[in-house]
Amino acid sequence: MSEFSLIERFCHGIGQVQDSTIIGVGDDAAVVSVASDSQLAISVDTMVEGVHFLPDSDPADLAHKLLAVNLSDMAAMGAEPKWATLALTLPDSNTQWLAAFSGSLDLVAKRFGLQLIGGDTTRGPLTLTLNIMGLLPKSKALSRSGASVGDAVFVSNVLGDAALALNFLQGRVTLTESQALAVMPALNRPEPQVPLGRGLLDLASACLDVSDGVVADLSHMARLSGVSIELDVADIPLSEVYQDYLAHGGSLDLALTGGDDYQLVFAVPKGLERSVKDLARRLKLSISRVGQVVKQSDELVKLSLNGSAFQLGNVQGYQHFT
Amino acid sequence: MSEFSLIERFCHGIGQVQDSTIIGVGDDAAVVSVASDSQLAISVDTMVEGVHFLPDSDPADLAHKLLAVNLSDMAAMGAEPKWATLALTLPDSNTQWLAAFSGSLDLVAKRFGLQLIGGDTTRGPLTLTLNIMGLLPKSKALSRSGASVGDAVFVSNVLGDAALALNFLQGRVTLTESQALAVMPALNRPEPQVPLGRGLLDLASACLDVSDGVVADLSHMARLSGVSIELDVADIPLSEVYQDYLAHGGSLDLALTGGDDYQLVFAVPKGLERSVKDLARRLKLSISRVGQVVKQSDELVKLSLNGSAFQLGNVQGYQHFT
Repeated sequence: MSEFSLIERFCHGIGQVQDSTIIGVGDDAAVVSVASDSQLAISVDTMVEGVHFLPDSDPADLAHKLLAVNLSDMAAMGAEPKWATLALTLPDSNTQWLAAFSGSLDLVAKRFGLQLIGGDTTRGPLTLTLNIMGLLPKSKALSRSGASVGDAVFVSNVLGDAALALNFLQGRVTLTESQALAVMPALNRPEPQVPLGRGLLDLASACLDVSDGVVADLSHMARLSGVSIELDVADIPLSEVYQDYLAHGGSLDLALTGGDDYQLVFAVPKGLERSVKDLARRLKLSISRVGQVVKQSDELVKLSLNGSAFQLGNVQGYQHFT
Repeated sequence: MSEFSLIERFCHGIGQVQDSTIIGVGDDAAVVSVASDSQLAISVDTMVEGVHFLPDSDPADLAHKLLAVNLSDMAAMGAEPKWATLALTLPDSNTQWLAAFSGSLDLVAKRFGLQLIGGDTTRGPLTLTLNIMGLLPKSKALSRSGASVGDAVFVSNVLGDAALALNFLQGRVTLTESQALAVMPALNRPEPQVPLGRGLLDLASACLDVSDGVVADLSHMARLSGVSIELDVADIPLSEVYQDYLAHGGSLDLALTGGDDYQLVFAVPKGLERSVKDLARRLKLSISRVGQVVKQSDELVKLSLNGSAFQLGNVQGYQHFT
């Protein structure tokens, strides 16, 4: 099958058609219209076989995760996802693989109101790059740099399940079958917190999504905001499976540094904490207060447990090239 | 070196800063502002080692070509390049390679007024994906689908030199040293026709850039426009090196189907041909009339030589997965 037929067959009509898309897939470039009261948020994430996912991973999972990690960046900015381009490098023209991949891509894209407007299909080692674009009300972007001393720090849902699932797959953690089934979606099909990000536009002073582990990610927020952040590790929200893992001698490290959580962690000025609770209720979402923003010191992220300093076994987040 | 230091060291400050960039590299997403009289053009192109370029290629050449193929898509739409994101998959953290690559990227980006606003660096087989964004005056995009019967068809500069250079490197074509030196830049450092695309906004009825060979690319224009296109192969503009190759028994196939030309081929309504000449003079560019748009028939692109049908040795453009 030729490159053109491949692209046309699998990339046309993916996601939700936007009124503001002037030209979609099939020309030298897509053309879109951005309303004058909006700004455009743009992000890119790549997943490489053998680095970000295991060989022979389910293509439907891969499509879900590729969109989720990129949608999570939109969530972290408070942006409404609108358009995406896909650069797909494939070892061969596997129609079955492509059908499963594009079917899942379409499903998730539609659920988040995202349209695929361009792509490039090339031959080579399996590599997936999605470039995502979303809209923001003017000057409302949730940056990483706005946290102020006195702000409270919150995180959505629970942390650590994706890392627990990965460590289970790698044989480093023991879980029962039902426990494994319970945490696997956190790894393979994370749910990007897009509605939460949109709801935080008028609440949060700084926000980011937890991709490299909450400690590493909060250190970026602290550095860019010129502050330090105190985390009380007892307040880190954990699933029942993780709590059971802890009770049987497991460590908090996976929840603090494991990464791949795609939850939002954000700072909120004093006096707005009640609004966070209202938002959580409205979105039927669990949001936990995990710490506070303090004056900057040598330690950008200070961990404590019941008032005493807490030491991690491994203080690094997941990093490529280390 | 950690992923964060790598990205910060090599991706910060690449290209020309735009007033309309609100947030650049370093947050969860970049944020830009699009003026209300503009639309946004978006395109993505990937280059894979061993497929699109030879192993151990000069990183400065790779950066140039990666930008050029993407800038060429902007040119084909008539868009003004503004922003790009880079997804860089590298087998290892080679500082020397990265310095050469990012230096060249910066140089070419600045020359075309483009700013790098985001990126993702991952470990894996060498794969380069650039997503480019540019601005267009509202409703002015040069699509592929607007060609009408009676339009004249033009092409910029010369065709076939990149294919000649590639075939020389592969030992399939013999060139003198000075001839090889003369055609190599067409392969490794193509010049995207951005000013020409901008100049065509009020002239061309349809336009695309020649990446898969002029015959294959024009067949897309013909199909999408509902027409056929006649090419007189004697009018295809050729370099002196190519003419010499022809004179010594070479074929026109490389110029017609070789690809990687990154020239613009475009249709212009009757009566505007004089304006094309004026534009060529103003841009100090060679532009040749190579054919005309005719009523659609089974043959989307009809080749003729001095009034008789012309047969290609190989009628296919370069395609992945064939």
